[in-house]
Amino acid sequence: MEEKAKMKLNQKFAIGIDLGATTVKAGIVSTTGIVVDQISADAKANHGPSAVIQQISFVIQELLGKHKNSNCIGIGIGAPGMVSAVDSFVHHPPNFTDWSRVDVGGEIRKKFKLHVEIENDANCAAVAEARFGVGVEFKNFLFVIWGTGVGGGIILNRKIFRGPNGGAGEIGHVSIDYNGRLCNCGNYGCIESYIGQRYLSQRTKEILRNIPADRTDNHLYKLVGGNLNKIEPSIISQAAELGDPIAISILEEAGTLLGAALASTMNVIDVSVVVIGGGVSAVPAFVYDAVIKSLRSRVLKPHKDNIHVLRAKLGNTAGIIGSASLVM
Amino acid sequence: MEEKAKMKLNQKFAIGIDLGATTVKAGIVSTTGIVVDQISADAKANHGPSAVIQQISFVIQELLGKHKNSNCIGIGIGAPGMVSAVDSFVHHPPNFTDWSRVDVGGEIRKKFKLHVEIENDANCAAVAEARFGVGVEFKNFLFVIWGTGVGGGIILNRKIFRGPNGGAGEIGHVSIDYNGRLCNCGNYGCIESYIGQRYLSQRTKEILRNIPADRTDNHLYKLVGGNLNKIEPSIISQAAELGDPIAISILEEAGTLLGAALASTMNVIDVSVVVIGGGVSAVPAFVYDAVIKSLRSRVLKPHKDNIHVLRAKLGNTAGIIGSASLVM
Repeated sequence: MEEKAKMKLNQKFAIGIDLGATTVKAGIVSTTGIVVDQISADAKANHGPSAVIQQISFVIQELLGKHKNSNCIGIGIGAPGMVSAVDSFVHHPPNFTDWSRVDVGGEIRKKFKLHVEIENDANCAAVAEARFGVGVEFKNFLFVIWGTGVGGGIILNRKIFRGPNGGAGEIGHVSIDYNGRLCNCGNYGCIESYIGQRYLSQRTKEILRNIPADRTDNHLYKLVGGNLNKIEPSIISQAAELGDPIAISILEEAGTLLGAALASTMNVIDVSVVVIGGGVSAVPAFVYDAVIKSLRSRVLKPHKDNIHVLRAKLGNTAGIIGSASLVM
Repeated sequence: MEEKAKMKLNQKFAIGIDLGATTVKAGIVSTTGIVVDQISADAKANHGPSAVIQQISFVIQELLGKHKNSNCIGIGIGAPGMVSAVDSFVHHPPNFTDWSRVDVGGEIRKKFKLHVEIENDANCAAVAEARFGVGVEFKNFLFVIWGTGVGGGIILNRKIFRGPNGGAGEIGHVSIDYNGRLCNCGNYGCIESYIGQRYLSQRTKEILRNIPADRTDNHLYKLVGGNLNKIEPSIISQAAELGDPIAISILEEAGTLLGAALASTMNVIDVSVVVIGGGVSAVPAFVYDAVIKSLRSRVLKPHKDNIHVLRAKLGNTAGIIGSASLVM
């Protein structure tokens, strides 16, 4: 509250936009990386690009109406899909209707006559951790968003490594088994298809459905009151912390497999630090230990002694903070 | 010959060193990337670092004795193992005795008072292809050395991407199966353990040993006069070109698996062009087609239409040319 008051009077700020297929979140972010005001709206992703741009404009307008416009140094936008390194257009964001490539940044710039930057959403979260989160201590790290899917970003020398076309860091689509599970992307064995939120929940349900009736007094069952449709990673984590062996084994396996995918990635890009964010990253510490153990046993020798695997710090405001920091 | 004569009189040149565990090769390389003189010597890798440095000095001395020293712009060295991005020391080159970390570049600089640069050998070959080979057309590509092992280098914006510690580009140690073959590095399923020269030869021998006697009139048997110990990738390639189904299936599978490893790599570093060099890269064109087919079916959508997989151009002089070009 005090921070907000100060902000109004004399502090520069940036607006950060975190565009998702369901919601567009926006925040006023201080130059020290603090979200001092926040708003969200329906993204209207199924109404086509102009509806989405209208929703983005709406949340910006709302925030600008409440804060001193002359203090706004610009607007940063984090968007799903590939944000082209060449033209900054947003290409094929998943679950957005009638969208091939759209100049979201250009449209917003036209409307608000402010400095506008746009970047892939996973990259934004990586930048946020690099500037204001656990990554402050590390010049180079791999950022993993562990949620419904598995995304990522690569920070090199404190900057995002976008790759020649803006598509770098797709850690979720490193395959751990060329003959393995079919991934949504069409490839086989992508790590996303083994540890993504839906798969973890599904896998747990299947195991529970197949256990004998006299074992249904386990923690997982109790936590969801017998309604298996309520199983999700936070429940699995709770059960694991209560000592539930099924929950522990599922999460430990997920950590081990994530370690395998990260080993291949480290061998290619020569980065030994991993920061894990996203909804599922709230898993208990033993899962991080499993990632480290798997990584250490698999990665090439020069990396073995330098491995760090850390939980992200900024939680679900990372997207807003990171996009805002694009214009800082 | 004419080139050599010209060189003596008025052309600047660099010396390129290609250090291997068996042999140290050295060449006089014109600024247009042509090897105009070449010499080699025993690397004495099992005699310790000072013997190796003496051998490198010997080949340099020999070349400088034959060419106008004032035209020499410097010496580039390609070395196996990791060449540290921090101190340029050569760390743990495989098959070198009593070698932890050695300042090879510094020693040579002291002896010859010339500009000396040092780089990992796979990176040198990648640089050679980037400046004078098939990579000239591409700003960004992945270089794969397909030989006894599988090595690699990443070219971004026409320069080598070394990674924060100098260890980037270890494409041979991208795993395609976390439960797969045990690799020399200790990990499971590294692509090197499926397509490296020794494995391909071994695999072919095993298949041949198990086929019925009436099928020993196949091309592979004939090409080695029944002596299976002579089986090696060049023989497998010849047999495949004669239509031998075993040879074709082994090479096609190798291409398919290489494509799987490259798909994960492309998804991480966002590069859609692959250049393949090294001893095994002389395989028939259908193997390259298999790599492309596998890659295209596996890689993320934005890359699918931009895939190029090309044979390297410079053959076994790539190491010398690339190391020389470090000082150009």
